[in-house]
Amino acid sequence: LEEFHRIRRLTEALCAPLSPEDCQLQGFADASPPKWHLAHTTWFFDRFILQELASPAGSHVPFDERFLSLFNSYYQRLGVPFTRGARGVLSRPGLAEVHAYRAHVDEQLVQLATRLDGEAAAELERRLALGLHHEQQHQELILTDIKYSLSLNPLAPSYFDAPLPEATVVATTERFLPVEGGIVEIGHAPRRGSFAFDNESPCHRVCVGDFALASRLVTNAEFEEFVRDGGYRRSELWLADGWDRGFQAPLYWRDGGEFTLHGLRPMAAHAPVTHVSYYEADAYARWRGCRLPTEAEWEIVARRESASGGNLLDEARLAEGRVGPEPAAPGSSQLFGDVWEWTASAYLPYPGFRPLCGALGEYNAKFMASQHVLRGGSCATPRGHVRATYRNFFPLETRWQFTGVRLARDL
Amino acid sequence: LEEFHRIRRLTEALCAPLSPEDCQLQGFADASPPKWHLAHTTWFFDRFILQELASPAGSHVPFDERFLSLFNSYYQRLGVPFTRGARGVLSRPGLAEVHAYRAHVDEQLVQLATRLDGEAAAELERRLALGLHHEQQHQELILTDIKYSLSLNPLAPSYFDAPLPEATVVATTERFLPVEGGIVEIGHAPRRGSFAFDNESPCHRVCVGDFALASRLVTNAEFEEFVRDGGYRRSELWLADGWDRGFQAPLYWRDGGEFTLHGLRPMAAHAPVTHVSYYEADAYARWRGCRLPTEAEWEIVARRESASGGNLLDEARLAEGRVGPEPAAPGSSQLFGDVWEWTASAYLPYPGFRPLCGALGEYNAKFMASQHVLRGGSCATPRGHVRATYRNFFPLETRWQFTGVRLARDL
Amino acid sequence: LEEFHRIRRLTEALCAPLSPEDCQLQGFADASPPKWHLAHTTWFFDRFILQELASPAGSHVPFDERFLSLFNSYYQRLGVPFTRGARGVLSRPGLAEVHAYRAHVDEQLVQLATRLDGEAAAELERRLALGLHHEQQHQELILTDIKYSLSLNPLAPSYFDAPLPEATVVATTERFLPVEGGIVEIGHAPRRGSFAFDNESPCHRVCVGDFALASRLVTNAEFEEFVRDGGYRRSELWLADGWDRGFQAPLYWRDGGEFTLHGLRPMAAHAPVTHVSYYEADAYARWRGCRLPTEAEWEIVARRESASGGNLLDEARLAEGRVGPEPAAPGSSQLFGDVWEWTASAYLPYPGFRPLCGALGEYNAKFMASQHVLRGGSCATPRGHVRATYRNFFPLETRWQFTGVRLARDL
Amino acid sequence: LEEFHRIRRLTEALCAPLSPEDCQLQGFADASPPKWHLAHTTWFFDRFILQELASPAGSHVPFDERFLSLFNSYYQRLGVPFTRGARGVLSRPGLAEVHAYRAHVDEQLVQLATRLDGEAAAELERRLALGLHHEQQHQELILTDIKYSLSLNPLAPSYFDAPLPEATVVATTERFLPVEGGIVEIGHAPRRGSFAFDNESPCHRVCVGDFALASRLVTNAEFEEFVRDGGYRRSELWLADGWDRGFQAPLYWRDGGEFTLHGLRPMAAHAPVTHVSYYEADAYARWRGCRLPTEAEWEIVARRESASGGNLLDEARLAEGRVGPEPAAPGSSQLFGDVWEWTASAYLPYPGFRPLCGALGEYNAKFMASQHVLRGGSCATPRGHVRATYRNFFPLETRWQFTGVRLARDL
Repeated sequence: LEEFHRIRRLTEALCAPLSPEDCQLQGFADASPPKWHLAHTTWFFDRFILQELASPAGSHVPFDERFLSLFNSYYQRLGVPFTRGARGVLSRPGLAEVHAYRAHVDEQLVQLATRLDGEAAAELERRLALGLHHEQQHQELILTDIKYSLSLNPLAPSYFDAPLPEATVVATTERFLPVEGGIVEIGHAPRRGSFAFDNESPCHRVCVGDFALASRLVTNAEFEEFVRDGGYRRSELWLADGWDRGFQAPLYWRDGGEFTLHGLRPMAAHAPVTHVSYYEADAYARWRGCRLPTEAEWEIVARRESASGGNLLDEARLAEGRVGPEPAAPGSSQLFGDVWEWTASAYLPYPGFRPLCGALGEYNAKFMASQHVLRGGSCATPRGHVRATYRNFFPLETRWQFTGVRLARDL
Repeated sequence: LEEFHRIRRLTEALCAPLSPEDCQLQGFADASPPKWHLAHTTWFFDRFILQELASPAGSHVPFDERFLSLFNSYYQRLGVPFTRGARGVLSRPGLAEVHAYRAHVDEQLVQLATRLDGEAAAELERRLALGLHHEQQHQELILTDIKYSLSLNPLAPSYFDAPLPEATVVATTERFLPVEGGIVEIGHAPRRGSFAFDNESPCHRVCVGDFALASRLVTNAEFEEFVRDGGYRRSELWLADGWDRGFQAPLYWRDGGEFTLHGLRPMAAHAPVTHVSYYEADAYARWRGCRLPTEAEWEIVARRESASGGNLLDEARLAEGRVGPEPAAPGSSQLFGDVWEWTASAYLPYPGFRPLCGALGEYNAKFMASQHVLRGGSCATPRGHVRATYRNFFPLETRWQFTGVRLARDL
Repeated sequence: LEEFHRIRRLTEALCAPLSPEDCQLQGFADASPPKWHLAHTTWFFDRFILQELASPAGSHVPFDERFLSLFNSYYQRLGVPFTRGARGVLSRPGLAEVHAYRAHVDEQLVQLATRLDGEAAAELERRLALGLHHEQQHQELILTDIKYSLSLNPLAPSYFDAPLPEATVVATTERFLPVEGGIVEIGHAPRRGSFAFDNESPCHRVCVGDFALASRLVTNAEFEEFVRDGGYRRSELWLADGWDRGFQAPLYWRDGGEFTLHGLRPMAAHAPVTHVSYYEADAYARWRGCRLPTEAEWEIVARRESASGGNLLDEARLAEGRVGPEPAAPGSSQLFGDVWEWTASAYLPYPGFRPLCGALGEYNAKFMASQHVLRGGSCATPRGHVRATYRNFFPLETRWQFTGVRLARDL
Repeated sequence: LEEFHRIRRLTEALCAPLSPEDCQLQGFADASPPKWHLAHTTWFFDRFILQELASPAGSHVPFDERFLSLFNSYYQRLGVPFTRGARGVLSRPGLAEVHAYRAHVDEQLVQLATRLDGEAAAELERRLALGLHHEQQHQELILTDIKYSLSLNPLAPSYFDAPLPEATVVATTERFLPVEGGIVEIGHAPRRGSFAFDNESPCHRVCVGDFALASRLVTNAEFEEFVRDGGYRRSELWLADGWDRGFQAPLYWRDGGEFTLHGLRPMAAHAPVTHVSYYEADAYARWRGCRLPTEAEWEIVARRESASGGNLLDEARLAEGRVGPEPAAPGSSQLFGDVWEWTASAYLPYPGFRPLCGALGEYNAKFMASQHVLRGGSCATPRGHVRATYRNFFPLETRWQFTGVRLARDL
C-alpha cells in the first residue's frame, strides 16, 4: 500500500510543473493530455477494482458515473470509448476535479483493501499490481506526450523550470560483444511475487545463432555522420514504408540542437540518439553493415544485468539524453534506461500465449499486429518498472517515444 | 477612452466564467481558443498602433517580441501567421500571462494617447475605433467558438453557471410586409463620428423589385415541420453542395432539445431557429415557396429601425434563443439581434470598393469570394456594434455561428 | 432534325482521334471519360424524351435498362447517380456498345418525332433543343477533360495527329473602351425560336456605373510579366482562398512552353492566357490596377457583337491558343471564343428566376452557390452554341477549362 | 527458352478476354491495369537484362527510352518511378504498342541468348529465371487486379465469357492433423536447377512445439456461421487495427452470392472462403478457439506434399472457388492452390538473409515490415510457380488477393 501511494504520488508530481492549460494539451491523436492520464490511470482502478470487486463486498460510491465511459481508453468490451484524438477537447472535468477523482478512488481503494480477505483479497492484490504497472506506463507517456505537445509551440517552452543538468556523457568506444547461440529460453518464468504482463509469457525455447551485440547505444554524433553521408536520401538503405515517409532527421533535432523537456538545447554529441522510428534505426544499422538485434538476442544478454541500473526515471527527475555510457563499464551497458531499443522482432504472441481474462485481455493482446518490440526502458521509465523480459511495442513509424538504436551482427 | 476600457473589460468578462483549460479549447480549425482571442485582440492594438504609431513618438516597450508573430491571425503582409488550426496547442503563454499582455498594451495605449496630437492623434483615434470594433467581433466569436468546443464534450457542459432565463417567447404570426422596389441606395454614407468597415462602402445604387419581407425570423417549431416533412431528404429543395454535406438537423439539436451555452435545454419552440447553414436556410425557404432576401432588400427595410433594439449581447449576459418576437410589435421585428440572417447575396465588393491601406486591407477584402452576406447581428453581438449597413460574411456551410432564416418573396 | 444529326455526329467526330483507352480516361473526379460523355449525352435524350414522352405514344424499347441509372450525371430526383469520380472505372459498356447505344436512341428519337404532333410535338422539340445544347456543352467538356487526362501522362501525348497550325497571333495594343453606365436590362428576352437556358432569365434591370472594358484578352506575354514580377508570391494581390492554394503558374505552362491538345508546344506569346483560376484572374487584374468586369458590364458590350464571330470550335478543328486578336479590329474583340472570361459576378439566380420543371430543374439551378459566372465561350465551344446572355459557371479554383482574363476598370 | 515463350504467352492469354478499356482499369492504387502488367513484366527483362547485359555484348536497340522510367514499378535505385496510383491514366502507349514492346524485347532477348556464353550466359539464365517467376507473380496480379476493378462496376461484368464450371465441391470433415514439434529446418536449401527468391533463404533452424493443422481450408459455409454469430461485431475476437476497419463480410460477398471473375454467382458453400484480411482470418480462428499456423508449421507439413497438386492456374483457366477438398483425400489437402493461407508470421528476414545485389535487392527485401506471410498459392497462381518454401506477403488489411484461412492449434 505504501508502494501504491508512492506511485500514485509520482504521477501527480510529474504533472506538478504543468499549468492547467498544459495539462489540456493533445499534440496529436496518439499523445494524450496529462490531465487525461491522471484521470485514466484512476479510471483503471475505478473500473477494474471498485466496479468489479467492490460491489459484492459493499457499498461503492462512484465519483461520477459518466467518467466510466469518458476515461475508458480502448476497452471495447466496456462500451464505445470516447474518441482518442478528441481527448484534448475535454476541458471539463477540470484539473482540480480530476485530482478530487484521484483522491476519491484512492480512499475507496484503501477502504476496500481493508475489507477484503481470502481469494478476493488476492485478486485485489493482483489487480492493484497490474494497475500500478499500468500507471507507471502512463508516467512515461505523460513525459513523452507533453514533450511532443510542447514541441509544437514556436516558443519552445520548457517542461522543467530547473535547467537541464550538464551532460556527463563522454565518448566511449563501441565494442561488439560476441554471444554464443543455441536453443535458449526466453520469456517470463512465473515466480511468487514477481510481476509480468501477460505478453511476456509463456517462457519458451527459441533458436538463436551466434551473434555480437554492441556494448552501447548509437550516439547523436554517430547518427549525425549517417545524416551527413546522405543516409536519409539513399534509398538502398531503407524499407519501402520508411522511405515513403520522407523523414529528414530525428524528430526533435533543430538546427544543430535539439528540443528537450528543458527547451531547446545544444546537441549532446555522445548521448544516445533518440526519437527515431524503426525505419531510421533499421536504415542506420544497414548503413553500418549491421542489423538490429532480435528480442531474444537482447533478452539473453540483458538478463545477466540488473534491470534497475541505468538512466531511468527517479522521483520526477529526468536526465534526458544527458547520462551516457559509463566510461569504463565492462560488458554491455545502457541495456536498461536511456532509450527504448528497437528490435528486429515483430510484436507477436509467444507460442502458447493466453491473454488476461475479460476486458483486461485487451490490455496487450489486441495490438499484436504491425508493431515491433522495443526493449530496455528509457530515461522516462520509472525505476522498478522495467525488466529483462519486458516487451514494449509501437508501430514502426513511432518517433515521439524515447526510442533509440543498439546494433547487432551475425558472427 | 472610457469606451475603450468598457469594451476591453467586456472581453475579459466574457472569459471570466471559463477555466484556464476552457480558455485553451479549439474545437475545430475555425474556432479559436478564448485565450487566443484575448491575446489576438490585444495584438491588433500592439501591432497596428503601438508598433506603427508609437515608434516615431517615443519609446515603445514590447511585452514579448515573439507575440507579434504568434498572435497574427491572417495578415500575410506581416509575415507567415502561426497555423490557424494549431492555436489550441499554445498552452504557453498561459492565461495569466495573456492577461498581463492585455494590461501592458492597454497601459501603453493610454500613455500614447496622451502623447500624440494633430494628425497622429486622429490616426490613433481611427485605429482605436477599428481595434474596438475588431474586438467586438471577437467577443461574439469567443461565445460561438466556446459553444462549439464545449458541444464536443459528452458531459454537455455549461458556459454559464446561472440557469438560462425562462423563454419569454410566444408564438406570433409571420406576416409578409410589402416593400416597393425601385432604384435605391445602399451602403455606408460617411458621416463625422460614424464608424463603418471598409466593406460597407461606397454608398451606391441598386435596382430592387417589389418584394415582401417576413415580419419575423423562422422559429424552431416551424423548422421542425420542415424536418418532419422530410425536408432534409428531398433533393429538389437543395443546392447541390448542401445536399452533398448530408446535414440532418440544425447543428445543436439533440433529441428534442438543443445544446446551448447553458448546457442541454428543451427546445424553445417559438425562438428563432439557429445554427443552420446557408444551404439549410435556402432549402427551408424553397420548401416554403419563398426565398432568402438579398442584402439590399434587407438593408432598405432595416434602416428604418433602431440598430440597438433587439436581442443583443449586454454585459456578458446572453439570452440565447430565449427572447423572441415581441408579441405585438408592429412592422418588422428581430431585424437586429437574435440571429444573423443569411441573405441571398454573395459577399462581393461594392462597386468602387477600396480596401484599407497596408496590411489592414486584408481585414475584409481578401475574403470576397465564395461566401454569403449575413445581416443584423445576433444575441452574441455586442449592443452598439451592429448597424443597418453592416455586412457579416461566412462560407455557406457555416453552422457554428448564430445563423438563422428570414423569408422573403417577390410581389 | 438535320441539326440534330450534325450535332450528334460532331460529338462522335471529337472522339474519333481517341483510342478506346483514351476514351476511358478520367484524370480527376471532375473530368469525365470521353466514353462517358458519349453515353451521358445519349442518356439525356433517352431519359428525358424517350422515357417521358415516348411511353404514352407507343412502345419504347430501352437499349439497356441499367444505363438509365449508370449514366445519370447528377439528377438526384431520378435516383442515386453513379459516383462521379468513379466513371473511369466503367470499362463496360465498351466503346462499341456505347456507339450502339447512341445509334439506338437516335433511331428511336427519329421515329418518335414522326409519331408525335400538337403539344406533344412541341414539347419534344423543346426537349430536343435542350438536349442538343446540352450535348454541345459536353462537346467542350470532351476536349477539356481529355486535355487534362492526357496532361498527366509523362509522354505528353497529343489528341490531334495533325500538327497545331502555326500561330497567327500578333501583338496588338490593349485599349480600354469607355462605356456609359445607367439602368440597363440584361438577361434573355424570350423570342420565338431563340433558345436560352433557364438561368439566363428573366430579363431584368441592373444599375451599372461608367466603366471601361479592355479591347482584348490578356495575353501569355502579359501574364508572364506578372509571373516575373513575383505576382504569385505577393500576398497583397490575392484573395485568401486563392493564396492558400499555392498556384505557381497557369495550369499547363511547362518550362517556357505549354501543354496543348497537340502536345507540348512553345508558348504563343500573344495568344490569350488560359487555364487560370478566378483567383489568378483576379490577382492579375489587381496587379494591373484594374478589376474583372461584372457579367452585366460584359453583356451590355457583347450584345453589340455577333456571337458567332471569334475563335470557336468548328467541325472538330480546334485552334487552341493560336488565333488571337485581329490586328486591326475596331471596337472590342475576342468577346466570343478563345477563352471563357471570368467575371466578378457570383453565379446566382436572376431576380424572379424559375428553374425548369421536374428533374430538369436540377440542370442549372442547384449550382447557384460558390461559383462565378464566365462569359463568351472558348475555342472549344461549338460555334452556334454561345450568345451574349449565356452564363457559364465554375468554382473559383477551376483551371482545366479554357478560362482567361479580360480587364475592366471604373471611370 | 520454350519455357520463356510459354510463360510470356500465358500473360498475353490472360489479357486476351479483356478489351483495351478493361486493360486500362485501375480500381485502386494497389491494383494495376492489365496493360501495365503487360508492359512492366517486359520492362523487367528490358531493364535488368537488355540494359545491363546486352550493352557490352553488342548493340541493344531500345524500343522506347522513355519506357525505362515509365514502367519502373518501385525500384528507387533506378530513378523516381511513375506514381503507382496513376497508372490507370496511361492511355498511351496503347495496348497494341505495348504488345509491340513485348515482341521487340522478346526478340532482342532471344538474339542476346544466342550471343552470350560463359558467365555472361549463366547470369543471363539466372536473370531470365527471375524474370519469368516475376512474370508469373504478375499473372496472378492481372487476375486479382482486374477482379477488383470489375467489381466496382455496377453491371458486375464478367472477365470470362465462358460460364463458371459448376462447383464440384462437396462438404468434407475438417480434421486436425497432429504434428510433433522440435528443432526443425525451414527455408530454401540451394540445389542445382532449383529456383527460389532471395527471401526464402537461408535455410535455418527454428523451434516448433507440438501442434495440429487443419486438414483443409475454412469454407464459405463455415465462415457464414461466424458472420451469423455476430463475429464481425464481437470486439473480443479482433485485433485493434482490424476492428477499427469495420469490415462486415468478405470483400466480394453480395447478398448471399459472391462477385467472381465470372460475374455474380451463388455462393459455393463448401468452397474455401476467400478475400479475407489477416484480421478476419485471425478473428475467425479465435472464434473457433484455434489460431493461424506459423509459416514454419505450415512449411514442415507442406513439404511432404507435391507443390504442383491442387487447384492452381492452368492455361488461363481459372476455377475460382469451384474446386474444393477432395472428398477422400488422406492427410492434409489444399495446401497448394485454392487460396493463399494467412500465417501468424510477420514477414521478416530469415536469420542471415542477404538480398540480391543492386536494384534487384529491392525486389523483396524492402517490404520486410508490417506485413504477414502467406503460403501455398491460389487458384490464380500459375502451376509450377509455387513451392513449400515460397513466402508471399501482404499488409494485414489486404483483401483483393485470393486469401483464405487454415486453422491450427497447440497440442
